[in-house]
Amino acid sequence: MKHETSSHTIKRARIKLEDDPVILARFTMLAAERGARFGEITTVHIGKDHKVRDADIIAPSEAVFDEICDAIRRMEGIDLLEVKDVVHETHLHGKIEIAPRVTVNSIDDLQLVYTPGVASVCKQIEANPSLAYELTGIQNSVAIVTNGTAILGLGDIGPVAGMPVMEGKSLLFQLLAGINGYPILVDSKEPEEIIRTVAAIAKTYGAIKLEDIRAPECFEIETRLDEALEIPVVHDDQHGTAVVVLAALFNIASYTHVNLKRSTVGIVGLGAAGAGIFKLLHAYGVRRVVGTDINEAMTENFTAGGGEPTTLAGVMGEADIVIATTGVPGLIPADLVRAKQVILALSNPDPEIAPDLALESGALFAADGKGVNNALAFPGLFKGALEARATRINNKMKIAAATVIASHVTPEPSRRPAKTPKKIPNARLPSKWRRSACRVSAVIVRHH
Amino acid sequence: MKHETSSHTIKRARIKLEDDPVILARFTMLAAERGARFGEITTVHIGKDHKVRDADIIAPSEAVFDEICDAIRRMEGIDLLEVKDVVHETHLHGKIEIAPRVTVNSIDDLQLVYTPGVASVCKQIEANPSLAYELTGIQNSVAIVTNGTAILGLGDIGPVAGMPVMEGKSLLFQLLAGINGYPILVDSKEPEEIIRTVAAIAKTYGAIKLEDIRAPECFEIETRLDEALEIPVVHDDQHGTAVVVLAALFNIASYTHVNLKRSTVGIVGLGAAGAGIFKLLHAYGVRRVVGTDINEAMTENFTAGGGEPTTLAGVMGEADIVIATTGVPGLIPADLVRAKQVILALSNPDPEIAPDLALESGALFAADGKGVNNALAFPGLFKGALEARATRINNKMKIAAATVIASHVTPEPSRRPAKTPKKIPNARLPSKWRRSACRVSAVIVRHH
Repeated sequence: MKHETSSHTIKRARIKLEDDPVILARFTMLAAERGARFGEITTVHIGKDHKVRDADIIAPSEAVFDEICDAIRRMEGIDLLEVKDVVHETHLHGKIEIAPRVTVNSIDDLQLVYTPGVASVCKQIEANPSLAYELTGIQNSVAIVTNGTAILGLGDIGPVAGMPVMEGKSLLFQLLAGINGYPILVDSKEPEEIIRTVAAIAKTYGAIKLEDIRAPECFEIETRLDEALEIPVVHDDQHGTAVVVLAALFNIASYTHVNLKRSTVGIVGLGAAGAGIFKLLHAYGVRRVVGTDINEAMTENFTAGGGEPTTLAGVMGEADIVIATTGVPGLIPADLVRAKQVILALSNPDPEIAPDLALESGALFAADGKGVNNALAFPGLFKGALEARATRINNKMKIAAATVIASHVTPEPSRRPAKTPKKIPNARLPSKWRRSACRVSAVIVRHH
Repeated sequence: MKHETSSHTIKRARIKLEDDPVILARFTMLAAERGARFGEITTVHIGKDHKVRDADIIAPSEAVFDEICDAIRRMEGIDLLEVKDVVHETHLHGKIEIAPRVTVNSIDDLQLVYTPGVASVCKQIEANPSLAYELTGIQNSVAIVTNGTAILGLGDIGPVAGMPVMEGKSLLFQLLAGINGYPILVDSKEPEEIIRTVAAIAKTYGAIKLEDIRAPECFEIETRLDEALEIPVVHDDQHGTAVVVLAALFNIASYTHVNLKRSTVGIVGLGAAGAGIFKLLHAYGVRRVVGTDINEAMTENFTAGGGEPTTLAGVMGEADIVIATTGVPGLIPADLVRAKQVILALSNPDPEIAPDLALESGALFAADGKGVNNALAFPGLFKGALEARATRINNKMKIAAATVIASHVTPEPSRRPAKTPKKIPNARLPSKWRRSACRVSAVIVRHH
């Protein structure tokens, strides 16, 4: 499952609108008709007969955004006051910083945080190394390691260009689970060099999160580091993704008569995400998994783990549940969809088959990758592992996490009959994300 | 110059005192007589006829602290309410954390900081790598790298036991210069492995601060990394220390008729600090530097750089200015001190010769290491280098920094005649530290 990588433009338009809801409706329709979506729409000023609002507009391209602005200018009852490049502003000089956890008000306070006070703390840890859990931040710190070879769906753009994503992960770690995530950009594509580097600095952290490292190198790097180190090493593109997919499948099963363990699951695309999904489904007890990938090394890896290699047509012909993670939009032709198939076409921004098209072609369920985001999984997974001082994050923990995440999707109040084709409820969990992370964490501690 | 490493105990005593200044005076005298010093003394409650205060007591040992407590309990007019292990509390779970630099109030905001907004930022940096300075935190981040082989004066206690010091440095970076300092514990004593590791992750940062890595390995590690990388690499134990020592010498010269460049300087102890001081004095233009160390490798290194090796007696017999950085208390016998010598015996907590003894023995100036702290230098040095996007921190910058730091020491209002022996004014600069760091930064930018 690739992330959203499109040329979408997000800009913030400050608009002055006559205080008539019809004007707001016309404005939003105007943008919607041109393929734009909206982020936050906030009120910044209320006048006698007008309002000033900031509207975040997500346009399919810069050109479409400009077109929308022109249309606004021509519209009556609305003025375009200002356009802000809000993405640029948000990322300016980075999205994270180091903050003090202690107050230092005087030179005397420095004697506590620094010399001479610090020396006794160092000596205590030297004498009893496990005190480092208590007297340093190590046990609440995670290295977010990338070499920049598979950043979002952008591919190999190098580690520095990947930094905004690593800072974003760090931000999510802190906001959702109170974890300190330290970006580490490794300037190498050699697994040996990456393994050696991460192992050399691993004592700084309570866990290692490998991020956006391309397959197949990611498999060896993760496996060998996890064996070598006494702390959890998790390649999020594999396992975070697998956990949220399993959560989605749990919900689908609960809404239908699909029996997950007895189903044949077909995976289209056996890169990091596909391989992680396979491994977790296999561990969960799914009896038969078929799969396909244009890359031979990926297919061999899949076969070695017990998967059955086949073609795209083979997957579509045999699988009850199809999970596509190829990054190739429109890969699955509608005529291959069979009646009552479950289809998760997860590539972002454009899926292998549009859910509506899959449903029209007879699918029982269809969803794309918008709602299935591994940010639902990783903060809680890591928090629990850190709190439990786990040495690895095992399949039992991942399955427990998926169960909790699935339980956070509120069933729609009015259920349609199970056999009526419909989209699965949006798995994006607005205000509950933090609570979900907290509960995932708790369940991980229990399953340690 | 070693840092303070003693078995000093810092505890916070909460005491209830009768509201009579004599009681406070008796209490402080009672502690002072037993060799204790005081940190902050704050008032936490004012009663009708009493006050409750928190007093941070720095006792020479745990036993002495207990003795002081017993004495307080026996004293009239004062109650010991509580004793807090304030050092433990300060260091609990670490002294730094990752904080967001942007607000994230909604799922919509996530689209700005994360996908899809982040993708356009990554692509911009891929197309124009220098945009990483603007759109990530890299240019304001410094790796604080140690392998734990020379932590304070505690020696080789390992990287994990050194973490509290690295967190302390990170804290000072943020408090004094607004820099994000990321601790990196490298689990290796091999220069090759350390160089390779730091080089592999260097793109994450705008500069590298090597910290508490033992000599002679520190020399090779710093030199080779500084050559290999396009960002500044500074071993603080060498250069931060050298800058504050040079600042102290500038002030001594301004109070006396000592001509620094024409003086013979003698360095006792040629480890990281001694070597750094030598290199900077040499660069500044001091014509003759003699030195001694019990370690042959250190002496060879010194000689190769243009220093004249001699014995301790040789240094004391020839040098106009003696700088001792050995970590050996009382190393310099009083009878070796010559009239009008300047003596900086910088080892903490106990100097090579007590300033009073040196002055009695005829020295013109004498100081110990309490006030000469490299926290005066490194925040501003790095901030300036980062702002100027310097590729290294050169001697011109260091000399400029020393000049600024020296200017922050206010001369004593009533000057004694220049030839009267006296201590140098305390170079610890209470509320001015941050301002000093800011001015050091500005001068570095100018001298880039």
